[in-house]
Amino acid sequence: MDATTGIDEGNERFREAVVTADSAGMPRLYTRDAVVLPPNGNAVLGPEEIEKFWATAFKAGITDARPVTTEVIRMGDYALEVGECTVLAGAKVLDRGKIMVLWRREDRAWKMHRDTWNSSLPLQA
Amino acid sequence: MDATTGIDEGNERFREAVVTADSAGMPRLYTRDAVVLPPNGNAVLGPEEIEKFWATAFKAGITDARPVTTEVIRMGDYALEVGECTVLAGAKVLDRGKIMVLWRREDRAWKMHRDTWNSSLPLQA
Repeated sequence: MDATTGIDEGNERFREAVVTADSAGMPRLYTRDAVVLPPNGNAVLGPEEIEKFWATAFKAGITDARPVTTEVIRMGDYALEVGECTVLAGAKVLDRGKIMVLWRREDRAWKMHRDTWNSSLPLQA
Repeated sequence: MDATTGIDEGNERFREAVVTADSAGMPRLYTRDAVVLPPNGNAVLGPEEIEKFWATAFKAGITDARPVTTEVIRMGDYALEVGECTVLAGAKVLDRGKIMVLWRREDRAWKMHRDTWNSSLPLQA
């Protein structure tokens, strides 16, 4: 499967997991030794921490996250995705931001291996 | 030159450019079609915008930025760096954050191709 299709599928599964608040399913979208680098916190390492991270996000009220890919740079079994993402709590836009994700082929799927993002909105004074 | 050495050299040149507020020299540390994804703003595309971005950062008072590499994933002519960075304004720590940079070999050096970061500090209420 080519990287762009694999990343599209991964993002679709990611969005489904967010919409259904499926924190238990989240680690399967990531490689076994994945790292998440969220804003305003420390790096999140491996399946257990990743599940906990997303459980906390869903408890905080996130109901949807809509990633849009703007670029894929293929590098063998890796691919870097650059894109944008809108995060919602019900009808309210919590954040609009930029994403940068290193994907890797694992178990015949493309999975997130290093995942980071930041807000495109100005800092609140 | 191996990626880790090239990235170390690139980061050393980056830090020198920050300490000397050399915004005009900044684009040479990036590939010709580099993209910077800074927090709280839009993507910054290409040499002219990159120079302007750093000029604004230096005017805002940044006097030092100290990147520390924690991981390098080599992928042919590309390498992904994950690390941390402390940003100073004189003696004051402006920010401590996490960095994720895709480097690429260009003109016999390793240069930043996609550059993003975010703060590890909690959001101010």
